[in-house]
Amino acid sequence: MANRNFTLVIHGGAGAILKSKMTPELEQQYRDGLQQALAAGFDILKKGGIAVDAVQRAINIMEDSPLFNAGKGAVFTHEGKHEQDACIMDGRTLECGSVAGIRRIKRPINLARLVMDKSPHVLLGGEGAETFAVEHGFELVDDDYFHTERRRQQLQVAIEKEAAKDDPSGDNQFLSEDTRHGTVGAVALDRDGNLAAATSSGGMTNKRFGRIGDSALIGAGTYANNKTCAVSTTGHGEYFMRTVLAYDLSALMEYSGLSLRDAADKVVNGTFTELGGTGGLIALDAEGNIAMPFNCEGMYRGWQSHDKGPTVAIYKDDNSE
Amino acid sequence: MANRNFTLVIHGGAGAILKSKMTPELEQQYRDGLQQALAAGFDILKKGGIAVDAVQRAINIMEDSPLFNAGKGAVFTHEGKHEQDACIMDGRTLECGSVAGIRRIKRPINLARLVMDKSPHVLLGGEGAETFAVEHGFELVDDDYFHTERRRQQLQVAIEKEAAKDDPSGDNQFLSEDTRHGTVGAVALDRDGNLAAATSSGGMTNKRFGRIGDSALIGAGTYANNKTCAVSTTGHGEYFMRTVLAYDLSALMEYSGLSLRDAADKVVNGTFTELGGTGGLIALDAEGNIAMPFNCEGMYRGWQSHDKGPTVAIYKDDNSE
Repeated sequence: MANRNFTLVIHGGAGAILKSKMTPELEQQYRDGLQQALAAGFDILKKGGIAVDAVQRAINIMEDSPLFNAGKGAVFTHEGKHEQDACIMDGRTLECGSVAGIRRIKRPINLARLVMDKSPHVLLGGEGAETFAVEHGFELVDDDYFHTERRRQQLQVAIEKEAAKDDPSGDNQFLSEDTRHGTVGAVALDRDGNLAAATSSGGMTNKRFGRIGDSALIGAGTYANNKTCAVSTTGHGEYFMRTVLAYDLSALMEYSGLSLRDAADKVVNGTFTELGGTGGLIALDAEGNIAMPFNCEGMYRGWQSHDKGPTVAIYKDDNSE
Repeated sequence: MANRNFTLVIHGGAGAILKSKMTPELEQQYRDGLQQALAAGFDILKKGGIAVDAVQRAINIMEDSPLFNAGKGAVFTHEGKHEQDACIMDGRTLECGSVAGIRRIKRPINLARLVMDKSPHVLLGGEGAETFAVEHGFELVDDDYFHTERRRQQLQVAIEKEAAKDDPSGDNQFLSEDTRHGTVGAVALDRDGNLAAATSSGGMTNKRFGRIGDSALIGAGTYANNKTCAVSTTGHGEYFMRTVLAYDLSALMEYSGLSLRDAADKVVNGTFTELGGTGGLIALDAEGNIAMPFNCEGMYRGWQSHDKGPTVAIYKDDNSE
């Protein structure tokens, strides 16, 4: 086993997360959820496991929590169902797997991993992806599994406000951004110097028309390459797609020679913000440098490395990296 | 109306297109099809129309032809159906629209355009995308519309060979690449200096599990940005996705200062080829420079500019650009 830097960084969504709207109890729940995800993923790294296993494990914990918009806590579509996207990439090989619009998989990132490991394809959508899952022994769950009262109420509010405001765009401007565009993600550097990234998302409250977000797309919401960095984004997905943001961060490091931190700041505060995008990202390079920029009020996030204990943060002014 | 360079470049798929396997009649049909698409798109540019209209129009002609793997000539899925992907991007604004896994839209690029123009989203999938289409007055066609005898036979061959070879990967290595991964695409520069790119694909013969290809994905198969270039790829889509190839070409121009030609050669002959990818691309910059590299036997392609008449080519040694 090599003996070098190893680091895990996670996020649980970004957006208009305001202290004034948060109860101490709910805040503690989020901090605990992030701590658990961080501990589970970091344990894999500590024991010499690979980065791609660590990011998957951390995401599984958040997918199993009702707090985060992924897996169990996924938001409702307009029809009262759940359609999820997920993506994982291995920086050693540039292998990747992703799924879009899946409805009956408990932990979407595990199906993305299966696509990476067992399919000649990169991206599988909808029912086809679920057929592939079943052929490989995955259990399908009923939509009931994803029913949580908090998300149900968010849908109700969204539908009522949409009707009152005559907002046919379905963009739900009135919802807080973490409800509109929540995501969970993780990036890791393992003891062998390998990078990996993964993102899982329950989509947008009240979404229609089979909208697929950046969390399904290599280069937009997720990217990992041992040569440069690992990236997972969270926020208004359409802007990450238009700016090919996760890959752009890598390209700025590779072609312009920017540091991870400078490249991360540039992509979040550049065209993405100018076009109107809100959100943030977590990124990690092969030296273990971390960047976690966001252009909104808060981002649920946590990090731990071989020489620094676990830290979680929510708001802008939380103890910074 | 400004008075400057304007150029249209199109492709109709790339792969193991061998002179030895082509009849003179079929070759002439392809050349005629490319000429018609080129003429229709170029006419828009000549009259002062915008780049995004020109690429859409050129693609519509190829989508209506049974020759190309898009629209009418789309290949069959394993289940004997048709699932198509398409994507369009406007280099002026970085606005884009795409659709994945759609089954009942005659001209998929028109639905991608509708997503760009009328939806807050970038990517819509499957039935949801078709519901959106119907709400905006699109007609759905029965799957019968896409039945062509040639494609039906290709599916039969694929299924038989797969069974005989016990090829559960479904990667159809025995099929020629244009059948496995055909695509049509166009890039244009209009009189006002605006770039646009679009790609439409009937997917892979015998594909399963709702596979979505690079033709649905901004940055992988399609990208346009007035600052750099417009790109449309064709070939083994998974490799374009893993290398985020269309955007990578743009990044090499923007961050490394490479010319369009050098950047295009680098992305096709670099990691994409090293990983095992086969295919090619068409690309155009704001000066009207053209690049059309491919690493396989042939690519159906054509180009025309304000000062050069229309040219079409198929093989490597055809009159080069």
